[in-house]
Formats: sequence, C-alpha cells, structure tokens
Amino acid sequence: MKHEPIPYKIYLNENEMPKAWYNLRADMKNKPAPLLNPGTMQPMTAEELSGVFCEELVRQELDDSTPFFDIPEEIRDFYKMYRPSPLVRAYCLEEKLQTPAKIYYKFEGNNTSGSHKLNSAIAQAYYAKQQGLKGVTTETGAGQWGTALSMACSYFGLDCKVYMVKCSYEQKPFRREVMRTYGASVTPSPSMETEVGRRILAEHPGTTGSLGCAISEAVEMAVGSEGYRYVLGSVLNQVLLHQSIIGLETKAALDKYDVVPDIIIGCAGGGSNLGGLIAPFMGEKLRGEKDYRIIAVEPSSCPSFTRGKYAYDFCDTGMVCPLAKMYTLGSSYIPAPNHAGGLRYHGMSSTLSQLYDDGLIEARSYVQTDVFAAAEQFARVEGILPAPESSHAIRAAIDEAMKCKETGEEKNIVFGLTGTGYFDMYAYESFHDGKMQNYIPTDAEIQESLKKLPKVD
Amino acid sequence: MKHEPIPYKIYLNENEMPKAWYNLRADMKNKPAPLLNPGTMQPMTAEELSGVFCEELVRQELDDSTPFFDIPEEIRDFYKMYRPSPLVRAYCLEEKLQTPAKIYYKFEGNNTSGSHKLNSAIAQAYYAKQQGLKGVTTETGAGQWGTALSMACSYFGLDCKVYMVKCSYEQKPFRREVMRTYGASVTPSPSMETEVGRRILAEHPGTTGSLGCAISEAVEMAVGSEGYRYVLGSVLNQVLLHQSIIGLETKAALDKYDVVPDIIIGCAGGGSNLGGLIAPFMGEKLRGEKDYRIIAVEPSSCPSFTRGKYAYDFCDTGMVCPLAKMYTLGSSYIPAPNHAGGLRYHGMSSTLSQLYDDGLIEARSYVQTDVFAAAEQFARVEGILPAPESSHAIRAAIDEAMKCKETGEEKNIVFGLTGTGYFDMYAYESFHDGKMQNYIPTDAEIQESLKKLPKVD
Repeated sequence: MKHEPIPYKIYLNENEMPKAWYNLRADMKNKPAPLLNPGTMQPMTAEELSGVFCEELVRQELDDSTPFFDIPEEIRDFYKMYRPSPLVRAYCLEEKLQTPAKIYYKFEGNNTSGSHKLNSAIAQAYYAKQQGLKGVTTETGAGQWGTALSMACSYFGLDCKVYMVKCSYEQKPFRREVMRTYGASVTPSPSMETEVGRRILAEHPGTTGSLGCAISEAVEMAVGSEGYRYVLGSVLNQVLLHQSIIGLETKAALDKYDVVPDIIIGCAGGGSNLGGLIAPFMGEKLRGEKDYRIIAVEPSSCPSFTRGKYAYDFCDTGMVCPLAKMYTLGSSYIPAPNHAGGLRYHGMSSTLSQLYDDGLIEARSYVQTDVFAAAEQFARVEGILPAPESSHAIRAAIDEAMKCKETGEEKNIVFGLTGTGYFDMYAYESFHDGKMQNYIPTDAEIQESLKKLPKVD
Repeated sequence: MKHEPIPYKIYLNENEMPKAWYNLRADMKNKPAPLLNPGTMQPMTAEELSGVFCEELVRQELDDSTPFFDIPEEIRDFYKMYRPSPLVRAYCLEEKLQTPAKIYYKFEGNNTSGSHKLNSAIAQAYYAKQQGLKGVTTETGAGQWGTALSMACSYFGLDCKVYMVKCSYEQKPFRREVMRTYGASVTPSPSMETEVGRRILAEHPGTTGSLGCAISEAVEMAVGSEGYRYVLGSVLNQVLLHQSIIGLETKAALDKYDVVPDIIIGCAGGGSNLGGLIAPFMGEKLRGEKDYRIIAVEPSSCPSFTRGKYAYDFCDTGMVCPLAKMYTLGSSYIPAPNHAGGLRYHGMSSTLSQLYDDGLIEARSYVQTDVFAAAEQFARVEGILPAPESSHAIRAAIDEAMKCKETGEEKNIVFGLTGTGYFDMYAYESFHDGKMQNYIPTDAEIQESLKKLPKVD
C-alpha cells in the first residue's frame, strides 16, 4: 500500500485493528501521582476503590507499569460495529486555506453516541458484566457520555442509571430520548432518589443542578445498591487506556502511508480524547524514538492547563470522590456556560497533567466565537458538522496550517475530531445570530477558587 | 478477497467506487410514462423543462435509453468525503433474532445531512454551477433534503434558497440551523416573498404551511429570478439516476464476497432511495440475468403503492408542476402527521411505478408503532439510531428474517438504511411515552382524493 496517493479516508481493515490498549504510564519516567483517599489523604488501595469501581477497572486504574492490556474479544466485536474510525485527509480544507500543510483528522463521531466516549463505555460495561453486576450508575452533563454508556449497557444487558444535570435534562430532551431508546433510566439531578439530592433540593429548591451534584448522586446510588458500580467517562487512567484505541488506529493508518506527523492536536476537558489520541506517539517521544509537537486545546472560560495550578484536588464539586494531582482551577471553580459542555471541567487527567508539567505537551486556549468560526469554516468544506468541543482542535489545526502558509513548511498536522454537533444547534444558532458571548475569568476569580484547594502534605 | 469471512462493515476502496451512474430506464421494456405539461397535457419538451431545471439535468431527466452517465470528477471528489458508505453485515441483529438469515444494510447516514439525499444534491448543485447559475431554490419538509442541498451549494459556492414548511421551521430549529451553518437562507413557507405565498397567507392567515405550498414558492422564485433554477430531491428520474450510486456500491461490495441477495428492501416515499438501491439489481432482473425479490415499504398512513391508483397526477399540491404518471393517492391527499416526514408524499417515482405495475416490485405498509418498535430493537443491537423513514425497511427486514427462522432458510436479506434519527427524537419520545398514534385512511378518504385526479386522455 505504501507510497500510493493518500485517499480521502484511510480505513484500516478489521484484521489491522489494535488487539491491545496501550498504557502510556508504563513509559513515563515520572509517573502520575496516585489518587488519595479524601478521608486519610493516603493513596487509594485497590480494596478501597473496588467499592466504587469494578475490580478489573481498578486493576487498570492502578497499573502504571504494564504497557499493553489485551482487548477482550467481546469488546473488539463491539468495536467492529463502529470502528475502525476513518483517518481523514482534509484535502478540501487544505485547498480552502491554500496551505502547504497536510491536515489529517481522526473522526470519532460516526456512531450514535456521537463521540469517542463509546470506546471506554463499552469497556467499562463489559467488565461490569464480567463481574456479574446488575448495572452501573453515572452522571452526564450534555449527555454524550450518558448516551455512550446507555448504548454499551444495552448491548450487554446491564441496567444503566444516569443522573443528568437538570438544566441539560430540560434543555437537551433529544439526548435524553436517545438514552431512553437504549433502555437507560435518566433522572434529572438533583433528585429525591438520593440523600445528597434531597439535601440539595431542601437547601436550594430551585436549583438546576451541576455535574458535581450529579456525580455525588450517582456514586451514592452505586455504593448503596447491591450489584451496582459507578463508572466515569473521563479523567481516570482506565479511560485514557481504553481511549488509546484512537491513537493506535491513527498511528497504524499513518504508518500505512509512511506519514509522520509533526503536530498532534486534541481538545482537552478531562483529557479522555487527548490522552487516547496521543498515547502511542507520546510513547515514542518518552522512549526517545521520535519527537512530536503535541498541543492541548481548551476553552478560555475553563483554562485548567493554561491558567490552573498543578496540585491535589477533588475530582468532583461535591468532594466525595478521591483526590487527584492535576492541573486544576479548583473544584469550586464554576466555568461560565460555554457551549463546549464536555470541556467544562475544573481539572485534568493526572497522566496528562504530569506530561504537561514535564514539558512534553503544549497548551493553548481559545474564546468560543473563534472556535465556532473555525467550526463553520470546517463544516462548509469538509462536510462534517463538528461538536463544539472538537472544534477547539479544528481552530488550532487551522491556525497551525496558516502558519505553514506563511513559512512555506509542508508540515503534517493531525487532530482529533471527537464528535458531531447535531445536538448543539442552539449553540450554532447563537453564533449565527451574533449572540454568542465570550468569557475569560479574571486572575482574581481563579485565585479565589484555588485558595480552597485541599491541603495535602 | 473472495471467500474470506465477511467483515462487519464492507468498505470499497476509493478506486473501486463507481465512476458512472446507472440509468435503470435504459433496460426497461415498458418505459416510464413522460411528464406532461399541465397546460397542454402534452409531453414536456426539453425546452419547457429548462426554464425550471438545469440543462444537463433536463437531459438526464428525459434520456431513457443511455445506460450509463459518467460521474464528473468534481462530484466523485465530493463523494470521496463521505463515500463509499459501508455495507454492514448485521451480525448482532441476526444473533438477537436467532435467525439463519444473513442480513446486510447499506448505511447512508454517515454524513452531516444524515441521509442519502446528498448523493443527488451534490450532482444537482454541480450542474447548476457548470451552467453558470447563481443559485438554486428548493423546498424542504423535515429538512433532510434542504440540509443536503445547502451542503452541496456551500461546496460549489452557489446561493441556496430553501422554503421550509412553516411548522417544521418552528418545530425543527436544529435542521434549520444546520442549513444556516452551510450558508443557506431558510424561509418559513408560506412567506411574503412570493405571490403564491402572499395569496395563501391572505386566504389562510394562520396556516402552518405544506410541502405543496413550499414547492410552489420555490418554483416561483426560481422562474422569476435571473440565474436561478429549481431543484428537487426525489421522484424525478434524474434523482434516481444519481442515487444509483447506492445500489452500485452495494452490488460491488456483495460481489467482493460472492454474496447474492435473495431479498432487497427499501423504504419508499418519492422513491429516491429505493430506486437507487435496487437499480443494478433490477437491471439484472430486467435483462433476465438474475432474479431478486424486491420489497418497497411505505407507511400505512400514506400507502401510494399499496392502495393508490396508477394514473397521471400533479407532482405538487399546488398543481403548478408537470404531471407524472405514477401510483398516487391524489395530489389533494393530505397524509396524517406520521413521524416519517420523508415518506409523506402522495405519489411515487414514475420509474418505480411502472416497475411495480409490471409486477417486478412488491410493496407493503406498516403502522408507525410497529416501525418504531423495529427501530428501537435495531438501535439497541446495531448501535445506529435509525431515521423513522429507514425504520420501515428495518421492520420488513426483521419480518423476513423471522420467516427464515420458521422455515430454516439462510436467505440473504439486503436493506437500505437511508439515514439517522438524531433530529427525530420527539417521535422517539412519543413512542417511549406510549403516545404515538397510528392512522390508516379509510377507503372513502382515498377515493375522495382520487376523484380529483386530473383527466388525461
């Protein structure tokens, strides 16, 4: 196949699909810091974690030395329904920009959940099933993760209980109905079903909820119900492990045509997509075999990498989950209502945080009107309507390609197109109507929430 | 490649993609009846048609003897952005049904327009551009065709003016915003922009519009504007020609694995998808080379094939367009508000009508609750959330597969999965909540509108 002209879409054959996930931590000299028990401030043990998470997932969470984990055949079969995802050569965008750069994107949106989240959802559902559990609980904001998980649970016949932030539940009825189509029960959070929900409703009767509150309800329900565990769609090491399928496929597709990327770009909220996309490339970088520029892109309204602090913090606003060492704006930081709901997280994967702290990743942020301008430009020439989250990566890719135009460099730029924007049309509408607001927090605002970071020796 | 195990998804390589569309009419002994001029009741001439349609499209519309039309390179390049579409082996559905049948579906929903409509939209936009036109006008109901056309026009830098049925404009703001993202102007119909719109608004001030009215507005605007033509997304011969790409790819994919379908199933509204899917198979059947069972599936609420009459009728409710000989319920027939908006058309492609009249196609109809039950069953095991229109084909495919279970026959069943249901979640919601109504017209209702058929000698 080598040296043939590169097609618009590079698809691997089924037998070329990865058979193992790659555990980036195995090649890191500076390992990500361990999760801490919020009660004892000591590293969480496997036993402590297994009250909340499935056993095999706990093993994956804690293992920072095994480089590869075999992907079970049942999961590979499920992957075959929507994977391999295409690596697309953005010929039309290149022509539009008149850039000598060569732009590629890994498109993860061609499945009903509309994003890459399904890659980890199916793995987490599989291990829950293997352990003989009845079901899982989770929270969802905009609904992508909840949708992915409901699809995965439906496939394995698991019960799926989703706590959906109340304002999203009401404003995004479509995603809610997709989840119901897959048999999930979807509860607006805060709810009267849990103690924490009842308490919050008593204190704040009119509240429209928050992700932090929904997490607390989902965890409470999992811990208090026989045969249930809690699952999470980002931030955790296990999630990055499962998402490495994105990067492994990307690398295999590029290798087929002898293409070596110069720049790899991904949007970053909790880090699930970026961590997955860069995994095998970062591995080569860590082992000193190759060098790549890797760029994390985040919204200006929630700039954990670019303006946060590297410190131990709670993963949830409710402060019931373990602490993680990460770049954070403080768990009490409430991001402005940016339309990229999936990037509205105060912290960042501890693996990516360590890599960033070690200078192996760059980061930048954009205001959302710049992001939507890129989204629209991309949609018009490449056909795909991108999710607001993914459009952060598009913005950076276009900017890098325009730099190449100035310098005349023929760089290979690869970015992750994590999902589609079909359920984000209110955001597009606000952009078209010129009503979209940008929000950049002041230093004082960030300092205010950073002051409340927990004290860890 | 032959005799290898069949993968979940069969993708053609770019160089295996069809380079010509197949014109089914060339192999028909009984040709479809010509369009008639509503004023003279004589066959429409190329000159008469070219006031409304682009010249090359008029040529394609009238040519019933040339078997293949080369696909221009620019269109093939655009096709490469989202084609070849996968032919999927429904392993999970087969297992769920425990059927010996082998089920395949051609999935046309993996593009931003969400359906197969883009295949013809890009062709029609291309020929408009070639002719040096400024833009095109069209109508849209649910919005799939309008979305596809706006994407196509954006690609070629053409102006795109869409008249969207007012109730859809208000109830489906998402599709409207996708069209705006691609730079189309979207006007709720009836509007004050056209004479016919003003007249209808004066007569019926509170009207929420109809497809017939939107067609009339779009045609008036095209005919009255310098450098504009009108384009249509279904029914016409030219549309079936462009959509033959679906069937040609399907056949090429099956041929790679020596699979010969026994049954081919498609939903049928105006016939664009069914006509495209079956084209090369019907060609073999017409030439006596092979035999296939071909099944058209329509909603019980709009049963043109199963309960309509084969007669000349107006293509639009406003009676401004040419007459076509087709299976029709009468152009004054107003289908009940079934959720499969794309199948709510009183008539049927004249090519398919002739084939049906010649006994070469079977037809059946389903009520929508049966259709949504199949949609949900399919979504849960195959992952894809289907459009209500496409789900008619799923229903029939499942029924045929269950018959195979009874008889033990290992039939190969192929169906067209025309699109995704992301913008149809209100319909799914009504199904989940047990509020979905079925509607089957009485014989008297159908006779009433058939009485008003135009008199043609």
